[in-house]
Amino acid sequence: MHTVIKKALGHKPVLTMLAGCLLGAAASAALAAPANDNATLSQIRDSAMRDNWAYERLADLTDLVGPRLSGSPGAAAAVEQVAEAMRKLGAKVTLQPVKVPHWVRGAESGELVDYAGRPAGITQRVVLTALGGSGATPATGLTAPVLVVHSFDELQAHAAEARGRIVLFDVPFDQQMADRGMAGPAYGHGANYRVNGPRKAAELGAVAALVRSVGGADYRIAHTGATILDDKARIPAAAVTTEDALLMTRLAARGALKMHLTLTPQTLPDADSFNVIADLPGSDKADEVVIVSGHLDSWDLATGANDDGAGVAGAMGVLATLKKLNLQPRRTIRVIAWMNEENGTRGGKAYFAASKDQLEKQVAGIESDSGSGRPFGVLSSVAPKVEPLFEPLMAALEPIGAGAFTRRDVLGAADLHPLEQAGMPVFEPHVDTHSYFHYHHTPADTLDKVNPDDLRRHVAVMSALSWFLANMEQPIGRTLKP
Amino acid sequence: MHTVIKKALGHKPVLTMLAGCLLGAAASAALAAPANDNATLSQIRDSAMRDNWAYERLADLTDLVGPRLSGSPGAAAAVEQVAEAMRKLGAKVTLQPVKVPHWVRGAESGELVDYAGRPAGITQRVVLTALGGSGATPATGLTAPVLVVHSFDELQAHAAEARGRIVLFDVPFDQQMADRGMAGPAYGHGANYRVNGPRKAAELGAVAALVRSVGGADYRIAHTGATILDDKARIPAAAVTTEDALLMTRLAARGALKMHLTLTPQTLPDADSFNVIADLPGSDKADEVVIVSGHLDSWDLATGANDDGAGVAGAMGVLATLKKLNLQPRRTIRVIAWMNEENGTRGGKAYFAASKDQLEKQVAGIESDSGSGRPFGVLSSVAPKVEPLFEPLMAALEPIGAGAFTRRDVLGAADLHPLEQAGMPVFEPHVDTHSYFHYHHTPADTLDKVNPDDLRRHVAVMSALSWFLANMEQPIGRTLKP
Repeated sequence: MHTVIKKALGHKPVLTMLAGCLLGAAASAALAAPANDNATLSQIRDSAMRDNWAYERLADLTDLVGPRLSGSPGAAAAVEQVAEAMRKLGAKVTLQPVKVPHWVRGAESGELVDYAGRPAGITQRVVLTALGGSGATPATGLTAPVLVVHSFDELQAHAAEARGRIVLFDVPFDQQMADRGMAGPAYGHGANYRVNGPRKAAELGAVAALVRSVGGADYRIAHTGATILDDKARIPAAAVTTEDALLMTRLAARGALKMHLTLTPQTLPDADSFNVIADLPGSDKADEVVIVSGHLDSWDLATGANDDGAGVAGAMGVLATLKKLNLQPRRTIRVIAWMNEENGTRGGKAYFAASKDQLEKQVAGIESDSGSGRPFGVLSSVAPKVEPLFEPLMAALEPIGAGAFTRRDVLGAADLHPLEQAGMPVFEPHVDTHSYFHYHHTPADTLDKVNPDDLRRHVAVMSALSWFLANMEQPIGRTLKP
Repeated sequence: MHTVIKKALGHKPVLTMLAGCLLGAAASAALAAPANDNATLSQIRDSAMRDNWAYERLADLTDLVGPRLSGSPGAAAAVEQVAEAMRKLGAKVTLQPVKVPHWVRGAESGELVDYAGRPAGITQRVVLTALGGSGATPATGLTAPVLVVHSFDELQAHAAEARGRIVLFDVPFDQQMADRGMAGPAYGHGANYRVNGPRKAAELGAVAALVRSVGGADYRIAHTGATILDDKARIPAAAVTTEDALLMTRLAARGALKMHLTLTPQTLPDADSFNVIADLPGSDKADEVVIVSGHLDSWDLATGANDDGAGVAGAMGVLATLKKLNLQPRRTIRVIAWMNEENGTRGGKAYFAASKDQLEKQVAGIESDSGSGRPFGVLSSVAPKVEPLFEPLMAALEPIGAGAFTRRDVLGAADLHPLEQAGMPVFEPHVDTHSYFHYHHTPADTLDKVNPDDLRRHVAVMSALSWFLANMEQPIGRTLKP
């Protein structure tokens, strides 16, 4: 405890210290809980706001390593690069083994080969991309009639027609909902069809399944993502672009529509990979852990700058910020770069399994996985009674426009979800996501989409939040378990 | 002339006729130039604004035929489809032979195979698309160091380094300029590098040339377009996406950058094709021609809804509007769907060659080739003294927000350019183009980008303008010849 006070005070600007002395009562309050005083939190915030270290690490990750789907050479290179960057900060880095799915994209193409009104010799190309977990067509593709539906109910109503067909789920992404700050629910609605649609189509005998890309952009880009298929009916499954879904729906309205589809992905044996874990050891409560994290794997189409390079860089930035200020927390701050969030969450599961005898020591977790949009506050699944304790933190984040604390019963951050279900409260930067799903899971999720200033704000929020959680005097408490 | 008056009056609403009688002097003025009176122009405008015929033709062209690059099966099918649609309107349709370039896209891929900081086993994929007219790499591609430049001056300063390299012109598109209503100049700046950059690189011994896509979108889509190469040095040439240009520039700043490039397009012998020409014969000045046109060919990546399906549909819509109202113009209104605007303008040249003995009879020409953005007026290269004559037309277009007349010395509409150079004044709908170059020459130039209401407004502007030009009492005059 003394060490902490000494170090914290040792780095405060002199004027701030003088102000603390002169303020009398306020200064006494600060001394009562020195680690989480406004001066220290502000110092952390301001230091992060001046530092491009995290952005530089994000540039290294995206420009030098690039895509890093679980099991790929990129994922392996990313583990090495991120571990090395944190070793250079002086952190103790551990690689936690994780067995990950190993799915590899193959050739992919689509062609509308017959439809009402088709001129002789004409076919229409469809832009599509295989979903992670998709089965394969023959190498030369397959040809089948297309059944277009717009909901699961419509699929059921046409259940008898699905056999032998390619089923297209033409379900639009609700960008207006996303624009109103509800990108998550808008995504959830569409993602339900991506995750579960192909399996439901397979159960009805469909030979392949297509989903309309889950995202709001209109640049004929396909959004990949995971789908869940039974091994016994692993049919080919792909996302078509919004434009191509609209085209297919219009052509189907003119009459029978036939498609040639080629998808040749491979599902290989599970591969060896790792969560990258770096600890900033705590002082008097070192056995209690505050996790701050993002996921290191990405989809294979892009360099995953926002999903979730920004989250990893932000979490690493917490370490860099506190190291630079030479601040030691009371609890251990544990930076984790998760492996395999995208298509298995095996990293989160492996960590949970390894922690299951000491779950109460996992006192809080942060995961940033909603992109690098400007943060305007903090989301959390703490119990309601604990919420007022966060007022000093939010006061320190208010000057950068990030002072809003929003509580939810469950956040559902993928990698932390098992811990959250077990009672650990989860936190994340609350960010502007209105354009996040324009780029999400597409080839366009690249470094240029990350505003360096916004990323510095992320680091500021995550650093102050991590510090605050690691130094709270009071128990943080547990979530409302479902 | 009598025929015209009778027909025009015969279709005026009764109330309009009564109003004309009651207005006295105004009515007399209308009778002095009955064909171009406000009532007739308003009737044309309003009829076009209620009619989806042009949009339906655009849907047929894009959904059923699709891409239609010169020499392709799609271009041939488009000629048939558009000719048939105008025959159904009762027009006399002529197919004017045009020999067109026949360039066919092949395989295309790019990979950054070495760069400073590259982890072992890692390469970075580059999204690119061959430029029309590009030469080919060997089937297995070529590997060469990359020289990044940002201007022709920079290329000259590094002229000695170009030999044996792949030259990338990383020249950004000025979207802010486009947002200020100057999309044309913004495009022109970038297109200069696309059209002329590869040839200049070839002259310095470059083994291939890349240009940053000319367009303002950030969805990792490559914008194709024509480049002009000497047959003796037809090097491979492609457009990389904005994201990939940025990546390559960043990696080149870290050290030497090496790329593997595969482009296997073919330049085949010139192919037979056609301009589609449909006449609405004039009455007393039938030998004088007013052209209203768009270009029928498109690039091969998309269905060319805005470039220039909308222009063709708009021009056909003029015929449909006037036929529906049973209005006969004094001069002949000639609808032309040009072939080969994109990579040769052979259609425009063929028409000019065929008209060269009667150029003075080509009294005016309209070409719509800036997309289907909302029209707010008319652009023209008439001589300044003629401008006031257009006031009645603009008054009739004012109620739909399209009442602005803007004169320029040269419009430079590609297919009409030889005629314009010979003195024929050229016209086009003046439209909102701020997002036109987001989609232009990309796979995303698809039907969903066309707002049906905006297209109706295009037809209204083009119909009223065509009618006005075909019935002007005064000579339309000639352009200021350059």
